[in-house]
Amino acid sequence: MLATPHGLVETPAFMPVGTKGTVKGLTPGDLRGAGAGMVLGNTYHLYLRPGSDLVREAGGLHAFTGWKGPMLTDSGGYQVFSLAETRSISEEGVEFASVYDGSRHMFTPELTTRVQEDLGADVAMVLDECPPAGADREYHAGSLRRTARWARRCKEAHSRGDQALFGIVQGGLHPDLRAESVSRTVEVGFDGYAVGGLSVGESREEMLDILALTAPRLPAEKPRYFMGIGDPVGILEVIALGVDMFDCVLPTRLARHGAALTPDGRINLKNAKYRRDFGPLDPECSCEACAGYVRAYLAHLVRENELLGHRLITLHNVHFTLELCRRARREISAGNYAGWSRAWISRYQGLTRPGPDKLE
Amino acid sequence: MLATPHGLVETPAFMPVGTKGTVKGLTPGDLRGAGAGMVLGNTYHLYLRPGSDLVREAGGLHAFTGWKGPMLTDSGGYQVFSLAETRSISEEGVEFASVYDGSRHMFTPELTTRVQEDLGADVAMVLDECPPAGADREYHAGSLRRTARWARRCKEAHSRGDQALFGIVQGGLHPDLRAESVSRTVEVGFDGYAVGGLSVGESREEMLDILALTAPRLPAEKPRYFMGIGDPVGILEVIALGVDMFDCVLPTRLARHGAALTPDGRINLKNAKYRRDFGPLDPECSCEACAGYVRAYLAHLVRENELLGHRLITLHNVHFTLELCRRARREISAGNYAGWSRAWISRYQGLTRPGPDKLE
Repeated sequence: MLATPHGLVETPAFMPVGTKGTVKGLTPGDLRGAGAGMVLGNTYHLYLRPGSDLVREAGGLHAFTGWKGPMLTDSGGYQVFSLAETRSISEEGVEFASVYDGSRHMFTPELTTRVQEDLGADVAMVLDECPPAGADREYHAGSLRRTARWARRCKEAHSRGDQALFGIVQGGLHPDLRAESVSRTVEVGFDGYAVGGLSVGESREEMLDILALTAPRLPAEKPRYFMGIGDPVGILEVIALGVDMFDCVLPTRLARHGAALTPDGRINLKNAKYRRDFGPLDPECSCEACAGYVRAYLAHLVRENELLGHRLITLHNVHFTLELCRRARREISAGNYAGWSRAWISRYQGLTRPGPDKLE
Repeated sequence: MLATPHGLVETPAFMPVGTKGTVKGLTPGDLRGAGAGMVLGNTYHLYLRPGSDLVREAGGLHAFTGWKGPMLTDSGGYQVFSLAETRSISEEGVEFASVYDGSRHMFTPELTTRVQEDLGADVAMVLDECPPAGADREYHAGSLRRTARWARRCKEAHSRGDQALFGIVQGGLHPDLRAESVSRTVEVGFDGYAVGGLSVGESREEMLDILALTAPRLPAEKPRYFMGIGDPVGILEVIALGVDMFDCVLPTRLARHGAALTPDGRINLKNAKYRRDFGPLDPECSCEACAGYVRAYLAHLVRENELLGHRLITLHNVHFTLELCRRARREISAGNYAGWSRAWISRYQGLTRPGPDKLE
């Protein structure tokens, strides 16, 4: 359980991503109805569009977007390192070109902290570097040390008492560097700790191995946030390793491509066989999309690229992912998580009975 | 008041258009909440995608789309004549190339009647020809007579007792041809009568003049449907001439371009001045978009082409148009329609005080 000025978040919790101040196509009411606890906003995008000064004038991101529940903003670091084509890093910060118009900007620890204070989420993140794929050990070592120095500057710059600040652990796939990053970050002292720089191209096995070594080193009494996981199996795997919070655009992005999550695996509604499928999307789901429409109608909307299709499948995928977390919390309370999650994953992966779209 | 198997429709009524079996971005629940009585579906699109056979298998358009209220389908004639690049008309029907894939199809009165029976709306329309802009008097005369012969064939082919069938009056801007079309159509005998072939490029004055001559010739006890008007001023003007029903994609199409309807005129949220406008979209409106968000947020969504922006502004424009009709019904009951509508139009057109975007 995570306490925030805008309410409690039951953990482990999936945080839907509201990239530009909106979870694609959904209202705050939809998100509440789907059971969302905490929602994530992207500082990179909001800083550039509509501008964090404008959001502050509107009364902060809660007032601006209408989402009154717990909210977290990232620092923008991940987008700078993954979206920007040109960037240069120095001790001072990172200079980059806007993905919108190519204009030059510089993120420093002090600036991203102030921007997040303007946005006013319940949890802010330190500015970190997410090293490029293929970076060597030496690069990772230097990078994690700079990230730790930036973390200290973020903490010093942070002045909002009603906003938590989380540190971020880097170190690539090197166990000793992860350990070093943990101790340097914990030494600064934060309200929670994120594991960053994973789910960025390494194998799932490598990811879980390094997480298994990293997570137990984090303070047991502080929330642990795994940045960037949202597929059902990955969620269950990181929960097993003690992660409390995680976010990913996957459920919402899949929806815009016509892909829906079901207990029997992911299905793509563009597949011809759904054209005349008059059953619900997921018979075990109670969301508006599953309760009110048949697959054939949703498949029609997807094929015609209709807004309502994007909206309904997004709602379902978010609801499905949040419901998975609710169930995980119940199973953890009941002391049955390992057995339940193993069975759930087997069914989802089509190992217990033939799944519908295993070859997609 | 119009009685249908799926409920009563209070008239005069604006019918939101669900072109492809969905009013862009809105659920049936949204439409009910906005006060929609009857919703329109387009036979042309549904015949081609997903196919009226598939809709019939799903249990009809009500079951397929989840809209349980009154519904009307057009015959597809208007789309054939406005969308198709190649077409050829004969006494038998009209041959055309699909706007989706260029495949050849032929609509006959019998086919469009059967297709609409498969779709299962409460009201079906006869197949008519909407003559091309610039057609001469002779063309109109021949066309309206063929439309009347087609109307008879539609009536003969129509077999669903739970579905009303409306005739359509054509005749261009020629008063005597309109009169001839009325008498030929009424002679066949329908459950209601539509005035077609207007709002297709003629001036608003020409349109109202010919409507003023045509409407009083229609049977007083049957509903009168004006095809294709949806701007607030036009709605109030056709209501004044005794029209009971009308439809148009305008409110939904405007929304996708960022334009919103307000009592003080149409505003475009892409205009720079709305970036920092922290007031509601329309302070007099109770819809979800106006109650839950500020203009600055909606403007941000529109600029970023976010799905939620399209959805919320569509909801508002539909709600606004339906609310205008509710108010018109009240003023008619109170015997105050002429005075009220004159004042309403003056304000909307910025004649009583400076409107915000008069030069847009």
